[in-house]
Amino acid sequence: MAALRKTARSLQLGSCGLRTALAASTVHSTQHHRGLATAVQAPPVTQNNHGSKGPTAMVFLNMGGPSTVDEVGDFLSRLFADADLIPLGRLQNYIGPLISRRRTPKIQKQYAAIGGGSPIRKWSEYQCAEMCKILDQISPETAPHKPYVAFRYANPLTEQMYQQLFEDGFGNGHGGRAVAFTQYPQYSCSTTGSSLNELWKWRQRLEGKRNSVSREAASLTTGVQDGSIAWSVIDRWPAHPGLVEAFAENIEAKLAEYPEERRKDVVLLYSAHSLPMSVVNRGDTYPAEVAATVYAVNQRLGFKNRYRLCWQSQVGPQPWLGPQTQSSVEEYIAKGQKDLILIPIAFTSDHIETLFELDEEVIGESGHADTVKRAESLNGSPTFIKALASLAHSHLQSGTACSTQMGLRCPGCKSERCLESKKFFAAQEPRVSAS
Amino acid sequence: MAALRKTARSLQLGSCGLRTALAASTVHSTQHHRGLATAVQAPPVTQNNHGSKGPTAMVFLNMGGPSTVDEVGDFLSRLFADADLIPLGRLQNYIGPLISRRRTPKIQKQYAAIGGGSPIRKWSEYQCAEMCKILDQISPETAPHKPYVAFRYANPLTEQMYQQLFEDGFGNGHGGRAVAFTQYPQYSCSTTGSSLNELWKWRQRLEGKRNSVSREAASLTTGVQDGSIAWSVIDRWPAHPGLVEAFAENIEAKLAEYPEERRKDVVLLYSAHSLPMSVVNRGDTYPAEVAATVYAVNQRLGFKNRYRLCWQSQVGPQPWLGPQTQSSVEEYIAKGQKDLILIPIAFTSDHIETLFELDEEVIGESGHADTVKRAESLNGSPTFIKALASLAHSHLQSGTACSTQMGLRCPGCKSERCLESKKFFAAQEPRVSAS
Repeated sequence: MAALRKTARSLQLGSCGLRTALAASTVHSTQHHRGLATAVQAPPVTQNNHGSKGPTAMVFLNMGGPSTVDEVGDFLSRLFADADLIPLGRLQNYIGPLISRRRTPKIQKQYAAIGGGSPIRKWSEYQCAEMCKILDQISPETAPHKPYVAFRYANPLTEQMYQQLFEDGFGNGHGGRAVAFTQYPQYSCSTTGSSLNELWKWRQRLEGKRNSVSREAASLTTGVQDGSIAWSVIDRWPAHPGLVEAFAENIEAKLAEYPEERRKDVVLLYSAHSLPMSVVNRGDTYPAEVAATVYAVNQRLGFKNRYRLCWQSQVGPQPWLGPQTQSSVEEYIAKGQKDLILIPIAFTSDHIETLFELDEEVIGESGHADTVKRAESLNGSPTFIKALASLAHSHLQSGTACSTQMGLRCPGCKSERCLESKKFFAAQEPRVSAS
Repeated sequence: MAALRKTARSLQLGSCGLRTALAASTVHSTQHHRGLATAVQAPPVTQNNHGSKGPTAMVFLNMGGPSTVDEVGDFLSRLFADADLIPLGRLQNYIGPLISRRRTPKIQKQYAAIGGGSPIRKWSEYQCAEMCKILDQISPETAPHKPYVAFRYANPLTEQMYQQLFEDGFGNGHGGRAVAFTQYPQYSCSTTGSSLNELWKWRQRLEGKRNSVSREAASLTTGVQDGSIAWSVIDRWPAHPGLVEAFAENIEAKLAEYPEERRKDVVLLYSAHSLPMSVVNRGDTYPAEVAATVYAVNQRLGFKNRYRLCWQSQVGPQPWLGPQTQSSVEEYIAKGQKDLILIPIAFTSDHIETLFELDEEVIGESGHADTVKRAESLNGSPTFIKALASLAHSHLQSGTACSTQMGLRCPGCKSERCLESKKFFAAQEPRVSAS
């Protein structure tokens, strides 16, 4: 059954016209993204050689995943070095590498089981490139839109993306406009927060001198730009109607696989990556925003099916937010409820947590792989990609630097990095204002 | 400051025309609710002497609170006897009374501090009566609508309400139609679940013989009613537009109290009663539904202000869901954020958790009672009462027994009472169907 699903998925990838060979290359050159057949070297872009406000760099932020089994070690070592994701205190630099080395063989086996690597890079590159094509049509004034991907723990890393921006003519004296677009629909300090802190760190390292406090102040008051990139952020979009529609379509497609007479009694189990209770109790916004997505999707589905929100991927002895996905599936089956659809609700493309954890572990070990199913991840969904474009368009039109909500730290936050990073992005407002 | 607020509130009560003297009486007679001046004894209602489907009993379910300090002891002893709310295992009947006796003096002082009793009864009776007046206008086919209140831990208790239904001509051989309308907008097994289990218990005790399994089956197939009350349930309404609008109006009114230049920087702190993590991890739907309300209200407010969802009223050594309201307020003040509005988001009228815990403890002890404020509870809000009527009207038109979602037990649920109660209400569907 799992093998069948995998075949179906790889066929689907093929039908989306994805060039998997691209997975090892970075996303930057114009001809690559705009789908041109000729391999002409694009000239460096500058601030005013296209649309009145273009070009615009569209940078997808995500955690990323190893594209090959050999990259698992590096991926895990970066992951366990991230204090925003896994706070290990002052011993982070010692304990992190220890844990990551110990976990590497196990995780390598999981990636081997899902085909040798995570598809997150190819999906991210595809989604971003397709979104940019739509943006060029619906937002000609900010065109051309150039797609970039910046992962937190795998290639292309933030620093690589930033160097690519320089090579493509953004910043470094040329000015230019970039949008950091988180691909986590719901904001958590562990995910989007960590990616933004990383972006802020590299921006300070690579362009900080260009835009010191005094120069920033001068450029803000005079409106004269100093040649650094003007950044804005799409930091959360948990209930965007297009996102909701894309989820709903995939759920309806999965529901249609059940015989009609059983369909209304199928239970929808939304599953999101859990958080340690220490992060929840600090005031992280993620649990409430995931719940907002779940409610909006059910509203769109007319509340026809019963549902629950569960949380997956807990590790270690500390308490995490529940109920747990795997035990919920077991408990519903024990209660006689065997028609269940698992819906990954906090991630927009397939990754180890869907392909291995949900498909192989939760469903594979349920004993009911014929009645416990999983809704497809958004991956190449045209509805989803249209939603991304619509979101980005509204953001560009709004002229805001980030959401109002992003300005509020968690009540229990002690991170100076968070404070400074939030200040930086909010201070970009006058530079990206639409006026 | 607190004294001023209290005066303002009592004035507001006055302006709503509430007859506080009625607080000690039960809500049942027609002349009382319909606001008629004459004290004519109303005849018992029967199934077919009014609207084509009326009369309809509208029963507000809530936890209730002691109306006088003397009632605190009984209130607490019922509360700690409720295994749906506070599961104490097999020793419930021994430990419960011990805890409640020990807490009584402290809680009596709190009720004394808020004026000698909880206003929840007078608000519930007022809201229900006013809603019924609107329903009589917008839903003449189910008129007259007769208001009842059933509290879980204070008078009028469920059994009193049920006896009143009998006295008023519902059930007990006369048939009739009743709607159990939870006044907790978000469903928790500890709150609405407990109230419904209690209603089911008394219904079985008082009308069970009339409607045994075989007779029920007969009446379902033949459509002949056996004289018991046909019950339906409004079990959750976390994002009803009218509810959202009522919350938003009260928040906007409170925001208007800040000087205009500070208004956009006020932080909104939504506060809901917390749950033990054991209940959250069992799969209780409450945290996600509270989050849905919060998101909907912010959406209505245009996300103009930064906000967080916090949880209040944790007791005992077990872990509860956070972040905690009181510590969040302290932490924001420590970060320099002193303009804060507390918004009680999971309860629709004032009670000890707003009047004492938020006003006296959280705000009173914050050291910034001038800048930390609380949005008014919905209480007599005409927008809210209109929303109740609109909700009830849609429910009556739908002909459904309860929401689809109510049919799903929590993954970790072990309660046979929950199972049977859910079965009972779902099985009412053919009796209450609009067709």
